[in-house]
Amino acid sequence: MNLHDIQQHLRKFAEERNWDQFHSPKNLSMALAAETAELLELFQWLTEQQSKDIVNSEKDIAEVKKEVADVFIYLVRLADKLNIDIEKEVLAKIALNEKKYPVDLSKDSATKYNKR
Amino acid sequence: MNLHDIQQHLRKFAEERNWDQFHSPKNLSMALAAETAELLELFQWLTEQQSKDIVNSEKDIAEVKKEVADVFIYLVRLADKLNIDIEKEVLAKIALNEKKYPVDLSKDSATKYNKR
Amino acid sequence: MNLHDIQQHLRKFAEERNWDQFHSPKNLSMALAAETAELLELFQWLTEQQSKDIVNSEKDIAEVKKEVADVFIYLVRLADKLNIDIEKEVLAKIALNEKKYPVDLSKDSATKYNKR
Amino acid sequence: MNLHDIQQHLRKFAEERNWDQFHSPKNLSMALAAETAELLELFQWLTEQQSKDIVNSEKDIAEVKKEVADVFIYLVRLADKLNIDIEKEVLAKIALNEKKYPVDLSKDSATKYNKR
Repeated sequence: MNLHDIQQHLRKFAEERNWDQFHSPKNLSMALAAETAELLELFQWLTEQQSKDIVNSEKDIAEVKKEVADVFIYLVRLADKLNIDIEKEVLAKIALNEKKYPVDLSKDSATKYNKR
Repeated sequence: MNLHDIQQHLRKFAEERNWDQFHSPKNLSMALAAETAELLELFQWLTEQQSKDIVNSEKDIAEVKKEVADVFIYLVRLADKLNIDIEKEVLAKIALNEKKYPVDLSKDSATKYNKR
Repeated sequence: MNLHDIQQHLRKFAEERNWDQFHSPKNLSMALAAETAELLELFQWLTEQQSKDIVNSEKDIAEVKKEVADVFIYLVRLADKLNIDIEKEVLAKIALNEKKYPVDLSKDSATKYNKR
Repeated sequence: MNLHDIQQHLRKFAEERNWDQFHSPKNLSMALAAETAELLELFQWLTEQQSKDIVNSEKDIAEVKKEVADVFIYLVRLADKLNIDIEKEVLAKIALNEKKYPVDLSKDSATKYNKR
């Protein structure tokens, strides 16, 4: 199943439940942010190393997977409601990042382009 | 380009810049949340109707597209660092949602399953 | 009990539990964001009017109050760890906002100063 | 100036600009979350130690202070619109936390009560 199929599936899911009335872009942006915060919550007291080692805890990584799916689902819904072609936009953003962060100037630095 | 290709591309992008040192799951969860908040910011003072009509403003929808791409990119990076197969997890979550929110009980209601 | 007393109390609370080891500014910023997202979650499917009427539901407003307290507590902790005098900074920000948003130019408009 | 005075000041500020029309609890929860995310952004690529050392950078700590003030301001506005007495709720939450996290069981552990 590709991105387009997932989008169609989620659209049908919402239509069958008459949930489009709740799925304004505004509301979906809130749901999306609430879901990403559940990821934050899983990592907030961990060291960076512990956050990498979370893969070793079956229970914890299962929670992460669930939240990653939720974020993805709301993002696809939001894009669908606004007729955004995610793949196209992601490729455009990647191309832009290649220009903004050339290898020689960006190596080892997390400094944002506009602060360089 | 499919999800797997995007993931590979972003991985190479980070490796070339030696950015893996910054991309702990903890840090990526923060970057992801910060990006979703930029979507919130675009919608926070709009009515729900205005949030739908944002497609009519070339400038505003361009900003939304950019943020949607950023969220997607960080989500794919996070999933990659934790060996999460996004597509698999999304399909599992969709199947779970079908069970949790049967059409007859969920119609017209945004009430969460656990509050029903 | 004023802001200073609350700060002292929370400091003692963390010290007694040896929790300062977890309370880096980075971690506290994550906890703060996670708590504000719980507020988002309470409002995400409500209309703006319903969000005002939440005061009429004893159960719902109790949840809002709990989250408001959590956000406040983490904000005070973060400020304490960075020696930030919240009251001073808030008054400085209010003074700045008076200049940035003069009444005659800002009336009825949520447009940010830099977009005007 | 105490919490009550700040609340009154912010209320007058919004009234003079006729901004109450934008300040539904739903919208304020979005603005609050967007502001906390700006704090996240300042810390996302820092190590925990670097996040503590941010006090040594005049420019960076000034940005943190500004965001802390913004979060506080929106939190006070939200509480005001819902007639929430922040101080009362914070004290109630602190008392609850004393019970939930007794010193002997909580020492050195960030594990949430419900996971113990």
